[in-house]
Amino acid sequence: MTVNLKAPDKLLPVKGVRLAAGASGIKKNRSTDLVLIELSENATCSAVFTQNRFRAAAVVIAEKNISAVSPRLLMINSGNANAGTGESGYENAQKTCAYAANALGCLQSEVLPFSTGVIGERLPVDCFKTSLPVLTQELEADAWLTAAEGIMTTDTVAKGYSKQFELDGVTITLTGIAKGSGMIKPNMATMLGYIATDANIQKDLLDECIQSAVELSFNSITVDGDTSTNDSCVLIATGESGAAEISVKDSRYDSFMAVLNEAMQYLAQAIIRDAEGATKFVEVRVVNAESYADAKEVAYTVAHSPLVKTALFASDPNWGRILAAVGRAEISSLDINNLAIYLDDICIVRNGGRDESYTEEAGQAVMSRSEILITIDLSAGLSNASVWTSDLSYDYVKINAEYRT
Amino acid sequence: MTVNLKAPDKLLPVKGVRLAAGASGIKKNRSTDLVLIELSENATCSAVFTQNRFRAAAVVIAEKNISAVSPRLLMINSGNANAGTGESGYENAQKTCAYAANALGCLQSEVLPFSTGVIGERLPVDCFKTSLPVLTQELEADAWLTAAEGIMTTDTVAKGYSKQFELDGVTITLTGIAKGSGMIKPNMATMLGYIATDANIQKDLLDECIQSAVELSFNSITVDGDTSTNDSCVLIATGESGAAEISVKDSRYDSFMAVLNEAMQYLAQAIIRDAEGATKFVEVRVVNAESYADAKEVAYTVAHSPLVKTALFASDPNWGRILAAVGRAEISSLDINNLAIYLDDICIVRNGGRDESYTEEAGQAVMSRSEILITIDLSAGLSNASVWTSDLSYDYVKINAEYRT
Repeated sequence: MTVNLKAPDKLLPVKGVRLAAGASGIKKNRSTDLVLIELSENATCSAVFTQNRFRAAAVVIAEKNISAVSPRLLMINSGNANAGTGESGYENAQKTCAYAANALGCLQSEVLPFSTGVIGERLPVDCFKTSLPVLTQELEADAWLTAAEGIMTTDTVAKGYSKQFELDGVTITLTGIAKGSGMIKPNMATMLGYIATDANIQKDLLDECIQSAVELSFNSITVDGDTSTNDSCVLIATGESGAAEISVKDSRYDSFMAVLNEAMQYLAQAIIRDAEGATKFVEVRVVNAESYADAKEVAYTVAHSPLVKTALFASDPNWGRILAAVGRAEISSLDINNLAIYLDDICIVRNGGRDESYTEEAGQAVMSRSEILITIDLSAGLSNASVWTSDLSYDYVKINAEYRT
Repeated sequence: MTVNLKAPDKLLPVKGVRLAAGASGIKKNRSTDLVLIELSENATCSAVFTQNRFRAAAVVIAEKNISAVSPRLLMINSGNANAGTGESGYENAQKTCAYAANALGCLQSEVLPFSTGVIGERLPVDCFKTSLPVLTQELEADAWLTAAEGIMTTDTVAKGYSKQFELDGVTITLTGIAKGSGMIKPNMATMLGYIATDANIQKDLLDECIQSAVELSFNSITVDGDTSTNDSCVLIATGESGAAEISVKDSRYDSFMAVLNEAMQYLAQAIIRDAEGATKFVEVRVVNAESYADAKEVAYTVAHSPLVKTALFASDPNWGRILAAVGRAEISSLDINNLAIYLDDICIVRNGGRDESYTEEAGQAVMSRSEILITIDLSAGLSNASVWTSDLSYDYVKINAEYRT
């Protein structure tokens, strides 16, 4: 079950990118568990990785390789996270890169590996040895949707976004895919996200683009407050559109960023819409905070609260729980007498107490919706931030209690 | 359902303390909802209160009054938290203090009010006006158990602890009661806790006693990470035992602290054993950390993780989730290659990866128990800390989704 989310009908090819997805044998029943994304020779690539200290072997290698050379191949396996696997896990990840390099005919350091799935299990490297030579023969431009399906784990719906727009009269394509449904409170990146464009963007600027867009998308969502060991997000600019390079923050940069933000917010929100057990899609928007950091801290505190999340599941306008969560947020100052809270357009709290015009019926009507906006006005400054989250349902417990059984 | 917790058979009277409990009419069906604790004239009283910025009206008044005079009466109502009620909530709390002072014949400032229950509802003060004159006539020394029952909200079992011990040949009694089951991640205090002794302890030292004991008990538990607006914990020393005053940290102080720590840890753990939906009682013990703060941060991060808590509910030895939670704890440094994790006496992680001798069967056997110790060895220093927590079950969601309906 998802909250108003469908798999994309179609994802547009991006010049300079070819993809393939297949079953390597990691997952049982020959499910798709291996995805390849091949990049053209001059593609530029930026990435952000999880800040969890237990970084999966693949994360360590991908981060090292991306800083050294221009990557030619992204290799993503699902079904096994290869995290918490120590030194042998690292060696296994290196081995898979070697197999991939061999199959494609590139350097081992030009391969970026990514893994997602159960933590702590040994990665079955032989699966790669046999499947990679086959899969590299199947690379094609029009396989984004297959790739989006191939990286899913507990996701119920493939997540992808495509847009075409003009830059100086040249048509630019941007396509992105992502996966994630639980263990979601990304810290610098989501579970897995891959966004490619054929725009031509200078490398340092591309690094800035992804940092800025991630902050407002994948770093603004939470399902359960748990940060994965394998979160990674990659932004690719192949430059194959023929458009001139973007190397300064001009109007073309702004146009590109607008589309990138749109794409990454769509994908981040898609993860929440497909969150484990979710029945509601909720935006917690904090306005008029003293700083962006304050706004985000308050938004995350409310979005993480199990009591707020169970009230959302129950469609219960229990605003006392929102107020109690705001009250424990770790910000430097909070004037509770100036606080206001809204459910969609219904004011529930004004000046720190229940708004006089508020009725339980009005609150109930909003809470029964599948998409809810909680606005918290701190009246302390000019900064705003939004966090997107899901509710906490029986199915969340069911999915996570039964994950390995 | 609780995890190995029964209501106490009997709680010992404390010289200098009389109690009464009755139905004021706040709760429907004439359930007990008002408890009085009367203190002798020379009793000394220390307290800690919630650090939530939305402090209930009663908390604000109790903190003010306790610093001004020697309290004579503690008045605790359940069924209504009188929090998020603004200026009129404050006036209502003052009114109830006046009614109580009038009924008992003491100063209004000698009354400490406490409230627990639903947030945001108006406190029905008329209930107090009529019930207090009756209830003050019913005060008696042997009513601790009735009082423990009277302060319950979603608790399923009354929580109390009594012990007698000797100080310089004088028999000292210490009795405490507490309530709490959800919205539990106290920050300086639990939901509500009242501990009284007839020992004679100098006021400044009593303040130190409660701070120190709270840190290792009520400030070391979590159910859902939510800090209540009404948390309060009070420690009373009536001095009526006849024992000489304790005014320095001598061996008598040490003896007293040993019993106090035992009592407060028992009560704090009782809250976890009766946590909403709990099927397991879990201690997360972090050892060999660089500092106590680091140890506690790691312990709380693991204890809060919904993924760890659902794995506990499922009796699934999914140690990858424990490892991922340790990895996102906000401590200054963590050498993942030195990390070890144990489930009871079974080593699951050694040197940051799965222990070679670990078997799923051995992990499964521990996880099936109702009481589980998770030990995390950071190998970084000499500091240890424990946090007690419960699992996350269907019933947690059920209880919190249906609380107001």
